[in-house]
Amino acid sequence: MKSVEIYAPASIGNMGSGFDVFGMAIEGAGDRLIVERAPAGTLVINRLTGDPDLPLDPQKNIVTRVGAAVLAAAGSRIGLRFEIHKEIVAGSGLGSSAASACAAAAGVNELLGRPFDNHQLLELAGVGEQMASGSLHYDNLAPALLGGFCIIRSTQPLEVLTLTPPDKLWLVIMRPGVVIKTSAAKKILPDHLELHTAIRQFGNIAGVVVAIQQQDIALLGRAIEDHVAAPARSPLIPHFEKARQAALAAGALGFAIAGSGPAMFAVCDNPDSSRQVLAALQKVYKHDTRAKAWITRPDHTGTRILSKS
Amino acid sequence: MKSVEIYAPASIGNMGSGFDVFGMAIEGAGDRLIVERAPAGTLVINRLTGDPDLPLDPQKNIVTRVGAAVLAAAGSRIGLRFEIHKEIVAGSGLGSSAASACAAAAGVNELLGRPFDNHQLLELAGVGEQMASGSLHYDNLAPALLGGFCIIRSTQPLEVLTLTPPDKLWLVIMRPGVVIKTSAAKKILPDHLELHTAIRQFGNIAGVVVAIQQQDIALLGRAIEDHVAAPARSPLIPHFEKARQAALAAGALGFAIAGSGPAMFAVCDNPDSSRQVLAALQKVYKHDTRAKAWITRPDHTGTRILSKS
Repeated sequence: MKSVEIYAPASIGNMGSGFDVFGMAIEGAGDRLIVERAPAGTLVINRLTGDPDLPLDPQKNIVTRVGAAVLAAAGSRIGLRFEIHKEIVAGSGLGSSAASACAAAAGVNELLGRPFDNHQLLELAGVGEQMASGSLHYDNLAPALLGGFCIIRSTQPLEVLTLTPPDKLWLVIMRPGVVIKTSAAKKILPDHLELHTAIRQFGNIAGVVVAIQQQDIALLGRAIEDHVAAPARSPLIPHFEKARQAALAAGALGFAIAGSGPAMFAVCDNPDSSRQVLAALQKVYKHDTRAKAWITRPDHTGTRILSKS
Repeated sequence: MKSVEIYAPASIGNMGSGFDVFGMAIEGAGDRLIVERAPAGTLVINRLTGDPDLPLDPQKNIVTRVGAAVLAAAGSRIGLRFEIHKEIVAGSGLGSSAASACAAAAGVNELLGRPFDNHQLLELAGVGEQMASGSLHYDNLAPALLGGFCIIRSTQPLEVLTLTPPDKLWLVIMRPGVVIKTSAAKKILPDHLELHTAIRQFGNIAGVVVAIQQQDIALLGRAIEDHVAAPARSPLIPHFEKARQAALAAGALGFAIAGSGPAMFAVCDNPDSSRQVLAALQKVYKHDTRAKAWITRPDHTGTRILSKS
């Protein structure tokens, strides 16, 4: 095999209340890579579309860093050439770096004849996520690789549980035209939580898991309310409170920040409602020319090979 | 109806990681009450067996306090006479006060022709739990009333989710011969949690819910590990670490404190293993003449009427 074309989906980290432990892959946005076998010593990005701010320098780009980590772990001496087509804007809160890391890890793994299983790929993709966000967290990596709704039960050792998202779940994503870096969004978080705040979050975390398993979208909407990161992060997002109220008034069953933001998501249990919520959110951000909003659904597949040659 | 005989089961509050949000009812221990209609103005405990330390004073006993609260909420002017037969030792961590409160609330409700639903009974039983523990928490009340595995998703407003416990779950309870009052056990807890500690607990809380729903006892055993209360509370329990290691070595899949202790519980996925764990724990506490250990299973029923006349 000389070349692999691979796709990894965007994802909603945290899913509101599940700070650093929940993530869900979503349809309709993702990163596409083409990775080619090259002469030993080559590690190069030939082409990068979709985000002009990302570095082509192989020492600084997540894709090449993860690709090199996979080669090193496999003891392979081949070189790699990449084409990167980004559909997810970096710093949006939708798992941009995680999608790139997972596509690179799984693409190079495929090229090498699959020496690594998903668990190992997740750890290798973590190299890139740590570089991008300044800390190692798997809440976007796991859904980007595995699809569906993921729970990071433990990081040491790494244990990921995957659940099938509800059939009747529609999500409205609103991404305002500002960028918040995960590393910056992590810095503004408190080091400590009051115990009674933690207990409220415990209840919501348990509620989200029940909601996913019982396909109860109203419960999901109540339980995504985040008492940990949202109080610190929502002031960074223009019109957050207005957007939240508009979404709920238009029929959304819940509303929260996606990952470290600024993207937000609303949960709905039918397509009509999702269209009304979309319109309501677009109205709030009508003066933000770089804002983007869309309706999406859970992605069940995660990272997948599109073609090989 | 003149008289109701009613039973409420013991329960494991917290279930390890679910501090103040998880609880599971268990078989083989509970409180039995007989509540009789009496002339207006009467509020009396005629008989109390099983725990000589509990007060007969109707102003101080949970049963009479909750009974009076139910009468007041219903606007009833009847009087009440109680017989209380306690199988759960107060201060053991197994929901003694919650069982008494639920039996009283549901017993008086029955006597009045059921004016209240379970949700209202839970709130009325909360009157007694608050009196006994100094704070209002539902993690023992909900399972004592409803049976099974309960999640306190929210306390304001009160929202309880109930799940059916796994079929192949055996529990070994070990109650050392010391008493720890919930109010004292609450005082030694830290006011604040480090964020990274909270995140570890988030993962375990989600893991417990998945384990219950997927009947995965090994996962349950890993996920009950408590990073919040156990570090502060386990030093209050004689031989805790030795007991934990003995249980795990004997085949337990997990081990944690029940509620605020000193009772502990081990989870097993078959009866043979539970017998070996029981023997191992009995060996650790062989010099504690007041210690008691037994094998039990989840109770699916909660508070129930035994007889009426």
